[in-house]
Amino acid sequence: MNTRFYNAKILTMEEPIKIIEGELWVGGSAILYVGDGTDKERVYEKNGNQPIIWDEEIDCRGNLLMPGFKDAHTHSAMTLLRSYADDMPLQDWLNKQVFPVEAKLESEDIYHLTKLAVLEYLTSGITGVMEMYLEPRAIQEAFTECGMRNAQVSGINKFGPSLEELENRYLSLNGQNELSSFMLGFHAEYTCSKELLQDIAAMAHKYKAPVFTHNAETALEVEECKERYGVTPTVLFDRLGIYDFGGGGYHCVHMCDDDFEVFKKRNLIAVTNPASNLKLASGIAPISRYLQEGIPVAIGTDGPASNNCLDMFREMFLVTGLAKYRDGDASSTNALEVLKMATVNGAKAMGWKDCETLAEGSKADLIMIDLHQPNMQPLHNIPKNIVYAGSKQNVKLTMINGKILYENGNFHIGTDPEEIYEKCNAISKRLQLEA
Amino acid sequence: MNTRFYNAKILTMEEPIKIIEGELWVGGSAILYVGDGTDKERVYEKNGNQPIIWDEEIDCRGNLLMPGFKDAHTHSAMTLLRSYADDMPLQDWLNKQVFPVEAKLESEDIYHLTKLAVLEYLTSGITGVMEMYLEPRAIQEAFTECGMRNAQVSGINKFGPSLEELENRYLSLNGQNELSSFMLGFHAEYTCSKELLQDIAAMAHKYKAPVFTHNAETALEVEECKERYGVTPTVLFDRLGIYDFGGGGYHCVHMCDDDFEVFKKRNLIAVTNPASNLKLASGIAPISRYLQEGIPVAIGTDGPASNNCLDMFREMFLVTGLAKYRDGDASSTNALEVLKMATVNGAKAMGWKDCETLAEGSKADLIMIDLHQPNMQPLHNIPKNIVYAGSKQNVKLTMINGKILYENGNFHIGTDPEEIYEKCNAISKRLQLEA
Repeated sequence: MNTRFYNAKILTMEEPIKIIEGELWVGGSAILYVGDGTDKERVYEKNGNQPIIWDEEIDCRGNLLMPGFKDAHTHSAMTLLRSYADDMPLQDWLNKQVFPVEAKLESEDIYHLTKLAVLEYLTSGITGVMEMYLEPRAIQEAFTECGMRNAQVSGINKFGPSLEELENRYLSLNGQNELSSFMLGFHAEYTCSKELLQDIAAMAHKYKAPVFTHNAETALEVEECKERYGVTPTVLFDRLGIYDFGGGGYHCVHMCDDDFEVFKKRNLIAVTNPASNLKLASGIAPISRYLQEGIPVAIGTDGPASNNCLDMFREMFLVTGLAKYRDGDASSTNALEVLKMATVNGAKAMGWKDCETLAEGSKADLIMIDLHQPNMQPLHNIPKNIVYAGSKQNVKLTMINGKILYENGNFHIGTDPEEIYEKCNAISKRLQLEA
Repeated sequence: MNTRFYNAKILTMEEPIKIIEGELWVGGSAILYVGDGTDKERVYEKNGNQPIIWDEEIDCRGNLLMPGFKDAHTHSAMTLLRSYADDMPLQDWLNKQVFPVEAKLESEDIYHLTKLAVLEYLTSGITGVMEMYLEPRAIQEAFTECGMRNAQVSGINKFGPSLEELENRYLSLNGQNELSSFMLGFHAEYTCSKELLQDIAAMAHKYKAPVFTHNAETALEVEECKERYGVTPTVLFDRLGIYDFGGGGYHCVHMCDDDFEVFKKRNLIAVTNPASNLKLASGIAPISRYLQEGIPVAIGTDGPASNNCLDMFREMFLVTGLAKYRDGDASSTNALEVLKMATVNGAKAMGWKDCETLAEGSKADLIMIDLHQPNMQPLHNIPKNIVYAGSKQNVKLTMINGKILYENGNFHIGTDPEEIYEKCNAISKRLQLEA
């Protein structure tokens, strides 16, 4: 498929950040051209001086093209638990509501529930997710069938799977297709034994691989780790060698000076999940401190059991709004920084060098933002409009790997959304979920 | 116009709160019938045993009808300043950016900028607004032409208008049409002299009228009031007799025990504006304390200069999310409480007894929520889905006073949205706003 977008505003997210008026061309899965249209010749030259045959030409009517959002921490199949187990503290929520239901989930359930999440990612302009959940084979199948880019991260813990199975997954789920990867990780310090953490460190060394995990989400988690090991989770992981090849943490709310030092020394990425942290009363992450220290921040929605939606617009507003509140400074953490977190830094966390910006040669993972909506007017400052005023309603089109998967409210993922809804409601009924 | 909605789920917001499966009938501006359809006869009886001739019959396909949201504090025409003066502390923001631009605004500018806001309210399912801004005649004209229900509140302060003009507005802008009212109010303690506050109290007594004002938005505002008068703004207003006939405050973030006592004694309403309070680093309102004290809370977006959007879904999530964070308790301020704030209590603040719920005889101010969207699935608990996961994208239809003003992304307000955008961008250009 060759697609030509014309009459567009384009926010490539390449530095220095500016908005171009022009065209963007997609050939197969990649971006062939981005520019004002005066220098198209060089693309024709690459094409043997032949004109490109367009399968589709889209008049953007002055709307904005930008890189798709990267959701850098989620548990997609927890769509099942949306509005099920709310209004409870994190530990009770996990132990009394989440874990017992998860124990009854079958691989096929997770496949359908993941597809439900994909529909929602597309409505929010999310073109790539960093996933951590049970049954990674079923998850990769669901994502791949839909056309969703995904980096799965192992959530191994003392309840399973075995270390052999983790390695098996790492070896077999990477390289399956161009949309999917599988990364090393574990659930959290409080669900792993010291031996397991040591084994994960050894595997990180064996494969020279980055490692991600839930880290410093609650004050209690940090306190209990200190009681067990005398140090914070971040320092513990670093001492065990888990972070020797990079990676990072999800949440990273309750951080001390030593933790920031480890993040800097190991080039780690902090993935913030502000809606989940509010709703579970976990706290507000020190975003401006990360910025000051030069530690990259990416943004995740967390799973829909805790959030309860998969909406990058809400997360972006929360990142800046909560930073301003926390710092008592309305100038903290500006809109461009937040846009960078939601796009470029998310791709970095997932290890995707060719999905960061709208550059020629990069993957065509992009969205069209409808500027002909009242919340995007007037047009003083489009990046600020997106971060401070944007909503899912502004997503007119979502393209992943060169394919349009969502356009004007219609999904093109190979399955009828109503069929997915029916499957998911049936799972909910079978497990007798009521809230 | 007579409109029949069928095949609907209906959340009337009447106590006890439950969801009915059935029909809702609108005759002219009012609701004729709400029910499961088995007791329609009594409506025919009222109609002289004649069947009702429907102008439109809408198959809701199982989607949800509920009362429209009431935005209980806004400055609509500040759409002009969206993404213009961000990232500044409140006092600088007001004095250096907002006031100088406002001084150049003409009545016609405010008319067009208010219409831009109406478009956005409709996309968010907002069917009534409690407005405070300059040029109330132009505002009433804009709202009335669009079909938007509005309660304007005077924002008088030491810079104007005169007390005579306030009284003139109060007398002439009430009773103009069934969509509009005008209430007594003033900007804030810090922009009014003591004499002016006394005059407003006298006018409240003359008309036995409730009074609304910005109150305790920032810690600085409260401190400076205490330096001037030895008491908090709430206590000062109460001592002056301003609250003798009710009313309430906007923001109400920094409150002490005495303030809560005044709110209880005078039956005042606290209007919370969480997005604005975060973005200007003002603080987090004590929502659960209001609930404990039995003080009704309503929700406002504040103006789009500080927020920067007019989105009741974002506000609802923030009300509960921030309360949970502030209380360190994930069970604080549940979804049903928040829905009540966003509908029933907003109508109460504006003095509209016939817009609170979807009851027979009440005004047909209602919205349809699209449950066939992934963020509303599964259907365990619809009220929680709306508060925790809802977005503008879920608003399928907005009806005010029996008229459909927004449906499936199309506006029916008598003016082409593109024309409104053009006018507003021209104003921005004329005033040389850049951000």
